[in-house]
Order: sequence, then C-alpha cells, then structure tokens
Amino acid sequence: MNEATAGCDIGLIGAGVMGKSLTLNLADHGYRVAVFDRDPNRLDALHDQDAAERGDRPTRLHGCSTYPQLLAQLPTPRIILLSIPAGKPVDEVCQRLIAAGIGTEDIVVDTGNSLWSDSQAREQHYRSHFIFFSTAVSGGEVGARFGPSLMPSGCPAAWSRLQPIWEAIAAKVDPESGQPIESRVPGKPVTGGEPCAAYIGPGGSGHYVKMVHNGIEYADMQMICEAYQIMRDALGMQPAAIAAVFAQWNRGVLNSYLIEISAEILATTDADSGLPLVDIILDKAGQKGTGLWTAVSSLQLGIPAPSIAEAVAARSLSALKPERMIASGVLAGPQAAPPPDHQKHAHIEALHDALYCAKLCVYAQGFQLMRCAAREQGWTLNFAAIASIWRAGCIIRARFLHAIREAFACDPDLQNLLLAPYFAKQLAARQHNWRQAVAHAALSGIPIAALGSALSYYDAYRTAVLPANLLQAQRDFFGAHRFERIDRDEGTLYHCEWSLPGRPLTH
Amino acid sequence: MNEATAGCDIGLIGAGVMGKSLTLNLADHGYRVAVFDRDPNRLDALHDQDAAERGDRPTRLHGCSTYPQLLAQLPTPRIILLSIPAGKPVDEVCQRLIAAGIGTEDIVVDTGNSLWSDSQAREQHYRSHFIFFSTAVSGGEVGARFGPSLMPSGCPAAWSRLQPIWEAIAAKVDPESGQPIESRVPGKPVTGGEPCAAYIGPGGSGHYVKMVHNGIEYADMQMICEAYQIMRDALGMQPAAIAAVFAQWNRGVLNSYLIEISAEILATTDADSGLPLVDIILDKAGQKGTGLWTAVSSLQLGIPAPSIAEAVAARSLSALKPERMIASGVLAGPQAAPPPDHQKHAHIEALHDALYCAKLCVYAQGFQLMRCAAREQGWTLNFAAIASIWRAGCIIRARFLHAIREAFACDPDLQNLLLAPYFAKQLAARQHNWRQAVAHAALSGIPIAALGSALSYYDAYRTAVLPANLLQAQRDFFGAHRFERIDRDEGTLYHCEWSLPGRPLTH
Repeated sequence: MNEATAGCDIGLIGAGVMGKSLTLNLADHGYRVAVFDRDPNRLDALHDQDAAERGDRPTRLHGCSTYPQLLAQLPTPRIILLSIPAGKPVDEVCQRLIAAGIGTEDIVVDTGNSLWSDSQAREQHYRSHFIFFSTAVSGGEVGARFGPSLMPSGCPAAWSRLQPIWEAIAAKVDPESGQPIESRVPGKPVTGGEPCAAYIGPGGSGHYVKMVHNGIEYADMQMICEAYQIMRDALGMQPAAIAAVFAQWNRGVLNSYLIEISAEILATTDADSGLPLVDIILDKAGQKGTGLWTAVSSLQLGIPAPSIAEAVAARSLSALKPERMIASGVLAGPQAAPPPDHQKHAHIEALHDALYCAKLCVYAQGFQLMRCAAREQGWTLNFAAIASIWRAGCIIRARFLHAIREAFACDPDLQNLLLAPYFAKQLAARQHNWRQAVAHAALSGIPIAALGSALSYYDAYRTAVLPANLLQAQRDFFGAHRFERIDRDEGTLYHCEWSLPGRPLTH
Repeated sequence: MNEATAGCDIGLIGAGVMGKSLTLNLADHGYRVAVFDRDPNRLDALHDQDAAERGDRPTRLHGCSTYPQLLAQLPTPRIILLSIPAGKPVDEVCQRLIAAGIGTEDIVVDTGNSLWSDSQAREQHYRSHFIFFSTAVSGGEVGARFGPSLMPSGCPAAWSRLQPIWEAIAAKVDPESGQPIESRVPGKPVTGGEPCAAYIGPGGSGHYVKMVHNGIEYADMQMICEAYQIMRDALGMQPAAIAAVFAQWNRGVLNSYLIEISAEILATTDADSGLPLVDIILDKAGQKGTGLWTAVSSLQLGIPAPSIAEAVAARSLSALKPERMIASGVLAGPQAAPPPDHQKHAHIEALHDALYCAKLCVYAQGFQLMRCAAREQGWTLNFAAIASIWRAGCIIRARFLHAIREAFACDPDLQNLLLAPYFAKQLAARQHNWRQAVAHAALSGIPIAALGSALSYYDAYRTAVLPANLLQAQRDFFGAHRFERIDRDEGTLYHCEWSLPGRPLTH
C-alpha cells in the first residue's frame, strides 16, 4: 500500500470538513482512498491539503468525479464510507450507488449525524442491494483527522471487515492512565494504546449512543457556561481570570476537553477590538438537532434526562436575543453585590464541586437513557466499552470517563451511575458545596438551568417518598385516574369518591 | 324538545366517563342525544344515571346499538360527537360511519385527547366523506357534566352550526369578576355569563391549544407538589396544616382549582388506616402523553418551555420508585433541621410568592409556545380569548387567567407574558421571596425541578448577555460552526483559526 495506484482500498463519498479529515487519517494509516465529491473544488482542496501534508511522499488518494469511477477503483466486496449531511442526501447517494452497480456484498458505511432510527430503517431497506452499516463519529474536524471516537453498528460480518480500519484510525488511550495519547503530526499517527472504537450493536444502536453522547455534550457545555456566568456576573471576574480557573480545574477531576478549550477561549483576545474574544461573540446559540433528539427520546421513553432538555431549552432561550434585550430593561433582578475578595475562593471551590456533581448527574441520565433504549430495542449494550471509547477522540472526553468505565466494568447491571460506590462517595463529599453554589446563583439572579436541574434530579432520585402521591391524588380528583396504595398489592388501583361524605375508596 | 321522541338532535359515540357526562350536560340544555356505544353495559349505566338525575321528567336520551340506528335518529345534516380514546379508535369509528352511510354535509366532532397533528390530517383525509371537526374538552368528568372549557377548531361553517350547542354546555364566567359561575345540580344548568367556548382556528389548532393547556397543567401540578414537599420535609409540617395553607392561598392571587383540590386532598383521612390519605398513596405518577407532547413540541419549535419538560421528567423520575428506595440509602443529603417556628411564616410566605412567580413563567412559556406554533402553522390565535375560556371549566382555571386575558387584550402582539406591565410589576415585588424559597430548598435537599427551572427561565429571559457567547466559541472551536460578532452586521459569520498563532478570525 505504499504506492499511489489506480487501485484503492476504501471509497469515501463527501469531501467536506469531516470527510476530508477522515480521508487524510485513513491515508496516514496506509489506506488508499478513492474519494468522490460532486463538487470538484472540494476534491482540489483535499488534494492540496494532502500535498502540503505529505511533502515528497506519494499520495494515497484518488479523486473520482462519477460514481462508476469510484466503484471501479475499489476491490470487491467494496467498503464505501459516506460523509454527507444526514437525512435525504444519504438516500440519494444510496440510490446512485445502486444505479452505478454496487454489489450485494459491498458495505456502505454512513458516518454522518443521522437519526438512529433512520439508520435502523436503512439497514433493512437496502439489504437486497448492499450492506448498510453505520458508524457515528465524534471529535469534530481534529478528531476525524487525528483520531476520532467511533461508534459502529450494524451486521457483525461487516464489522469484522471494518474493525481493523476503525481501530487503526480511532483515537487511542493509554490503558494504564486512561488518558488520551495524542499526535497531531500528519503522517505520524499514534501507534499502540487502546483504540476508541468498539462495536456497539445492531443497526442504529451506534447512532443512538452517539446521539446520547451529544445530549451529554449539550448539558456539559451549558453547565460550563453557567459556571462562567456565575464567575463573570456574580463574582465580578474578568475572562482572563476565569480562564485561569478553568485551566486549574483542568488539572483535577474536571479534566476534560471542554474545560480545556473553555480556558483557551477565555484567554483569547480579539485582535480587531482588543477585547476578550468572548465579549465580541453574539450570545445566540445554534443547534443542529442531536441534543433535541436526545431530549425527545428521554421524554418518549419516560426516562428522566431533564438536564439535557434544559440545555436544549437554554440554547433556544439564548436565541431570543431581541426579546431578552427588552426584558433586561423591564424585569427586575436582585440587588446583589459581588462577595468580598476573601470569600471568592470559597465560591469558586463551591462552583467546582457543583460542576463536577452536575456533570455526573448528566452522565447518569445519559447512561440510564441508553440502558432503557437498549431494553426497548433489544440491544445488548456494553456500557463499560461505551465509556471506554469516549475517553479520547470525542468532544466529551474527560478524565472521569475512566472511572465511569470502572463502575460499569465492576457492575454491568448498574441501574444508575449515581449508585456506584465511588461516585456516591464523591457526591456525598461535594453535595454541600453544590447546594451552596446553586443557592448563591439563585440569590444572585444568575440562570443555572442545567446546574440547578441536576441538583433537583439528584435530590429527587435519592428521595424515598416524592410528592407524586399528592399528584396522583390530584389526577384521581379531577380525572378519576386512580392510584395504588402503599399498603396493598402492587397494581391494585383505587379511586376516592371525592364528592361523597367520608370520601370512601373504591377499587 | 320537551318530549322524548325517536328523533334526536345530536349523536354521540362513546359512553365512557367523558361521553356520559357530555351527554347528560347536553340533555340538561334541552338537546335530545342519540348515544352509541358498542358496550351495552355502558348504555345501561348512562340510562340509569339519567333516570336517577331527572326523576319524573321525560328522558332526552336514545341508546343505539348500531351505527345505522344512530344515523337514523339524526336529522341531516347530522352532528355526531366522538368521545373515544385518541389514536386508532378515531379512524376505526370514522370508517364505520362511512360504511353506515354518513353524508358529506354531516359533521363529526372529535372531543377526545387526540394529537393535534392527527386532527389536522383527519380534516383533509375525510373531507370527501364528511366534515371532520375537533373540539378539545378540558375539565375532566365534572367539567364535562356541568360545564367544560371547549377549544373547537376546524372549518368555520361547521363552527357556525356547533356554536350555540357548545356555548350552551360550556362553563360560564361572571364577566365582571372573571370568576366561574358554577351549578352542580342536574337539570338546572347555569344560565347567563360568558361561555368558555371560543373558536380557536383551523383544524388541529384547538387540540394544539388544549395540549399546551395540559402542559401548563403538568407544570402547575408539579409546582404545587414541590411546595407541598418543602412544607412537609423542610418545614416539618403535617398534611392538615399544609391543607390549611393551601386553603388560605386559595383566597388570594393563587386562587385556582388545583390549589383548591390540593387543600381538599390534604385534609382527607384514609378511613381504613386513619392516616392522611396522601400518605397511603403510592408516589409513582402516571401520565397519558399530552404533557410530553407539549415538551416535545417546544423542543422541536425551539421555543423554551423547560418547566413543562421538567414536570414531565419529574413524573418519570417518580416512577423509578424501586431505584429511589435504594438510592435513598446510598446517596447523601444535607444535614438540615427545620427552621424554628417563628421563622416558618416567612418561609411559607416566600413559598407562596415562589409558586406565583413560577406559575407565571409556566404560563409565559405556554403562551409563547402557542404563538410560535401559530406562526409556523399559519393560524391566527386570539390569546385573550384563550385565556378567557380557561377561566372556568378547565383544570388550570385560576383567578389570574383574568389578568392574563387583560394583558393580551391590551396588547395582542405581546411576545411574552412576563413583559406585560402588570406581571412585570408582580414579579419585581415577589422575586426576592422566590429566590429565597429556591435557595432554601436547594440547601435543604428538596427537589424543585419546576420551581427552580422557572427561576432560571426568568433570570435567563431578563439577561441581556448570556454565556451563549462562550458556547458559540466552543462550537466554533471543535466543530468550526462559526459565530456572529456583536459589532458587525447580523448574519455575517466568523470563524476563529484556533490552531494558528494569534488566533485570527476569518469570515
């Protein structure tokens, strides 16, 4: 595979940001890649980047301008990766591959951000034409280029053929420390380490797991933003000082990619205005749907993931910028002055613990959601493996995923991460600080949708008797919905005759 | 219409709890009703109740055991109400009506809890066979019997024919005070007052509005439950004492049906055990889907309704009872003692204001969601009319809906209820107490998913600059998603070259 020839090993369709990076990553690992894009400019850009990166070494890429050309470059049975927008484009490309003569043993791998149920349906839909397989990819552009986290799902026979490829290009983790092993030098990929690629399960399951990954990512980002706003607006700190706090947090239990980049962002100055870069960025958050899908799935399955839903809503709320500008002049806040300097350290410590505990609750929500979806769909998910492949390459990579892996390795049937002894102990030690931070934000007028929601989740989860008994009585009062008694057999339903004297129960 | 004859005015299919009550309500207003149910026992039960209620007066009901019989009882063009479970049964009954010879000018009115988009689709689907109209009904069994809140939608010509019927049987409001006028005496319905029935708009819009009503109801119930739990577990009060607080609150700005019945429930003793009834009810909340639909719609439309999503999640969390029992022994809470007696009054006052402010935020979320859905669907919704018909008959009826009506009557284009001068002033006066209650609950270990979420919503909505600027920077850092600058034209997108020295911006 050392020479550029007309014969390639793998095909790839779609040379956008992600497709280009995956292609160069594959080439770094010795694969010859035939690349199709309907836009010749993108192929040119790919060739330019390839040339700049490899210097004198021969290219391993072959640009194709038609589907038949692409197919002709590949040995049968073929492997063709799709790196194209989710939705209709995937089916359009599949139809074109059929028209171009793709074979029934060929594998088409969707690496885009497809809705998991679409992937599930496509596996069935295309089975008489080719093998539809899917692999969710996390890590953004840099991950795709130098080692992403890969969540493959579909027929096991296809996985056998893909496994060496995916394990080669995936991010790597040091098996001892659980920390990422990184190289960002083109042509010199990481060798050794545990690959962040593990077979997830039947068709669609990998994209479901990736969807939950993104839901967790939404909440994680939102909570970091809330911590930032508390330091900025309630503690009166400047971005550079907050950057230093995040950089320090990144050396401890909060160590993670998102904390790391937050520190870098807050330390960045806008050359044009001389202001902190964050201050010239418009505070309207965008979103592309995976967080929303996670929240909708949790609502539909009836498994609580409220902090993820809060993060999605917080983005929507940020987008109402013109209304917020008006409201800021109309709606009253508290009269709160920043605490004196000698108390700031304690506030920052409390915030640190709040972020840690709340993150843990979000992961607990995400993992419980996956467990429930797996039960519904008949998948057998390996949660230790999922935590394992999220330790490097992906956006939510974080030191504490190593501990999550350990928790599920110890007890694969763990119902909820909060119940793992290690995490229960961590929460016990830090919950006091978490409460202080939440109370302080509420009194200071700082919105803490996700940090606060996570605390209520924690408190509700550890409450043996919730006021849902009153709620069931309300439902019975107005709608005769009936209720169970705590002192009778489960499943026996009672109704109170609210309008009769003495309010007798019937069942 | 004073005599029972074989000829009827209106048909009704489905003599369940709601259908039976609607039938008797129609009969009270002089309508002769032909009732079909496939279960003869239900028809018998209806006749028995009718006989018991009317004494010597002649019946106005006619039971039918087949669809052709039902059609034969009705003058053409016919009006037939469906009071059957949502989903497939509606289409099954429509097919049977077609088979039985329903006419193209006949009106079939779905009064069930259908998904609004199903109603929208059915209007089109059945147009060549009959006129499909829908009317969402709120108020549970008692409302349906003595005056529900009615949200009709569909073709205006059908509405003209239904209007006198719906206005007759709807709940009534005193136009001066905005308070319900109630009669619960069979055969002696309320005469006069403003009817709680208003044409909402094109097909599906009435069920959409009812869906949001139910979403608000979920959050309202959840917040009352949270207030209950704070009094119970953080203030150490017994159900009877909490009942007295609710009863007192029901005489002020919190006056509402849900507060009223909560007071009644908490004052009820279980005859069997001698315990407060609430204490023998299992704390696992049920749900039938409309709250979930509201939360999903808000996520999909990108309009924040986080407190409704929290209420749905809180019900799901309550259902994890066995896990909670385990968690209660594993996860640590705070060491908080109830406050001394002389401070309890202040805590209860704070809780009162928290409940009021949080309720207001939930209504603000619901109304803004309806506004956005209307824009998406091309509906013209009259928000003053919607607030108006929720003042009586429905589950969320409350004194402050009169003020909401005034707010929208003054400014039909009001973007968000919080911006109405009256409510902004209320919030300004009470937000301090709200914050105290939320902080106290967080420190005391009481989950306040909805009360807390509403405060974060309030604080985010009134914040001119949210940390979504940091979030946009994060998205640009890992995914090159780009951002807008506050000092440049809207819509121009910038990307930071994070890996280059000096981190220059490109666009």
